[in-house]
Amino acid sequence: MALIIQKYGGSSVGTLDRIHHVASKVKQVKDQGHDVVVVVSAMYGETDRLIQLAHALTPDPDPREYDALVATGEQVSIALLSMALVAKNCPSRSYTGHQLGILTDSVHAKARIIDINTSVIRHNLTQGYIVIVAGFQGVTHQGDITTLGRGGSDTTAVALAAALKADECQIYTDVDGVYTTDPHLIPEAKLLPEISFEEMLEMASLGAKVLQIRSVELACKHHIPLRVLSTFREGPGTLVTFEDKVMQKRLISGIAFNREEALIGLSGIPKQIGIEGNILQALHAENIEIDMITQNAVGKNAMDLTFTIPRKELSKTMKVMDKLAKKYHATVISNSKVAKLSLVGIGIRSHHGITSKMCQTLGNADISIHMLSTSEIKISAMVEESQLDKGVYALHQAFELDKLPTEIQAPLEL
Amino acid sequence: MALIIQKYGGSSVGTLDRIHHVASKVKQVKDQGHDVVVVVSAMYGETDRLIQLAHALTPDPDPREYDALVATGEQVSIALLSMALVAKNCPSRSYTGHQLGILTDSVHAKARIIDINTSVIRHNLTQGYIVIVAGFQGVTHQGDITTLGRGGSDTTAVALAAALKADECQIYTDVDGVYTTDPHLIPEAKLLPEISFEEMLEMASLGAKVLQIRSVELACKHHIPLRVLSTFREGPGTLVTFEDKVMQKRLISGIAFNREEALIGLSGIPKQIGIEGNILQALHAENIEIDMITQNAVGKNAMDLTFTIPRKELSKTMKVMDKLAKKYHATVISNSKVAKLSLVGIGIRSHHGITSKMCQTLGNADISIHMLSTSEIKISAMVEESQLDKGVYALHQAFELDKLPTEIQAPLEL
Repeated sequence: MALIIQKYGGSSVGTLDRIHHVASKVKQVKDQGHDVVVVVSAMYGETDRLIQLAHALTPDPDPREYDALVATGEQVSIALLSMALVAKNCPSRSYTGHQLGILTDSVHAKARIIDINTSVIRHNLTQGYIVIVAGFQGVTHQGDITTLGRGGSDTTAVALAAALKADECQIYTDVDGVYTTDPHLIPEAKLLPEISFEEMLEMASLGAKVLQIRSVELACKHHIPLRVLSTFREGPGTLVTFEDKVMQKRLISGIAFNREEALIGLSGIPKQIGIEGNILQALHAENIEIDMITQNAVGKNAMDLTFTIPRKELSKTMKVMDKLAKKYHATVISNSKVAKLSLVGIGIRSHHGITSKMCQTLGNADISIHMLSTSEIKISAMVEESQLDKGVYALHQAFELDKLPTEIQAPLEL
Repeated sequence: MALIIQKYGGSSVGTLDRIHHVASKVKQVKDQGHDVVVVVSAMYGETDRLIQLAHALTPDPDPREYDALVATGEQVSIALLSMALVAKNCPSRSYTGHQLGILTDSVHAKARIIDINTSVIRHNLTQGYIVIVAGFQGVTHQGDITTLGRGGSDTTAVALAAALKADECQIYTDVDGVYTTDPHLIPEAKLLPEISFEEMLEMASLGAKVLQIRSVELACKHHIPLRVLSTFREGPGTLVTFEDKVMQKRLISGIAFNREEALIGLSGIPKQIGIEGNILQALHAENIEIDMITQNAVGKNAMDLTFTIPRKELSKTMKVMDKLAKKYHATVISNSKVAKLSLVGIGIRSHHGITSKMCQTLGNADISIHMLSTSEIKISAMVEESQLDKGVYALHQAFELDKLPTEIQAPLEL
């Protein structure tokens, strides 16, 4: 008998039929004799509806009330899922973050879980109940309702798995698992039976959108095996686990990409100690997050600074840049049509020559690289967005990701 | 400086514009220096939407989960109202029944308030906040979410007024107050500036639908002056207070009616001691609520029993009656097209002849009476539904309700 945490996202519970389907899946695991705790997101579209309601009411909604409003989305879905289980003669009880005592800090809309009181869950499990938990939400010491921010249901699931020392945390989504790259773009993309936490973190942060970063970090920290599976199709999914437990040795695990990037260059800045810090501080003061950054000293007295930002921040960023350009007598250039292309793999750490093979591959495909940045287990290149698809395809072939063995590892023996 | 409890129903907060309008009204009272606690229902249509969702999922939703689901309706509206107030620079905080500690028994969907912890509200009022409370809901000792059943927001408001010893409890609705009868039916109907608690109870139970019965009982018991006003039009509304405080002396205060009735007769039942009890028990066992009941001994060995039930219970009731008819060799008749017409007034207690005047008036209008029942301050007649309107009109004229002085009493000096 194992203790399994399952998490179902908004599209998994998007309709009443789907809620019944999820209930059947949960019941199946329970019928095998396991204890099950299920974390559920709001029904697909519901959170957006609530957010729109708030913004239609007032341009700048009070954060405390915003969270109280948005948290109703999950309360609806947990009650419905629990009802569906009871209707299948499967004793079940739903709990909001507040009812359960999922204690968070008081940073509304972006709260972090501080502690989870597991006594209510344990009591219910002992009595044979399935416990349905509202994802994405908690409560402060003062009793105010908080939300964890977008994708926070994954975090709730992993935090619960850690607090309850669960055997596995299963994240059900609308994809089969983690692929070598987006199968919508490259039909030859292969499902990865396993991936290391580190690789998953790089994949997630680069736009693979399968798991929320914070939840992967948490699972890694608390040694919780994480499995990504499809709600709608049977299959073992992808197990996210520790590097030493990954059976299949691969150089490169996947290609991640992000289209929503913009590139900004500031050229001819005087070489002064600390000037980079001043520039970055001016951007930080406007809450602009910088992704990649490179610096070139172009001449004796001047240098260039190039960096990328989320594309939606471009106009805000340009206002700051124009001021800085005036101040330092520098020139600003911008390109709002760039995209980031990244190779991710544990093999990068120990194998030389991957960067050069990547650059050659892109070059052979007639793709020019605007920026290049490497880290322990990833290499990112900034290219024209119009050339992204071609680049992903070329790299996928060059690194033979379409030829990865797909020996499927069975899911944790339940 | 007074402490005012205001309650706004679903149609008062049915749109975002209306929520802004309610926020302005609340702010106005706060700006006069008063403390304000506002109880809010779910936005119009929202509770029905949630109920339909539950019933579309499963024909018999689990009661605990049903309450958790339905309670989200008020959580949405309190958060939005509080946001609207904050947007008008009016510090405000919303609280669900759970957050506030509105303790109820555990009869889901029909819970009763046991206790209210006022410390959170008092603390907020001291700090200058307006407190927005979710009506219609509470929490059990075990931390389960409960709802009070339809119209329960009125009860929440009065219970809060009692717990906080408020100066007045104002129930805002979409009508101007309590009328002598339904002004949609009789345009000459007059707004009553005041009405006694007892009269209000009779009016409410007879279908006037302005206030929930339980809330009137509670206000009476705890000596809370209750005022019914319109959210949308200015005016003093109707003050519900103690008989000795009603300034305007009237024989009859109003005419209430209810169309949704059905009449059932069981004739030729053997005269046996306790047989009425057996019959009523058989109905009670099926949760059928009987309204009026009369019994006639028609001959030496047989008697007739006639009673009325809510029309929607007719088919269920007839099943029980058919069994009873067989058992007692009696005959069943039913009439699904009857309506109840009632005169309500403190004057009935001390003035004879009102019943006969009522019967004469109906007789002159060619309306036959199927059943008649009198109590301390009301007289009810069961008539054909098709003749109801004519009956209301005739009685309204005969008792000169269209000539009542409408000296308006100013609202409590705030």
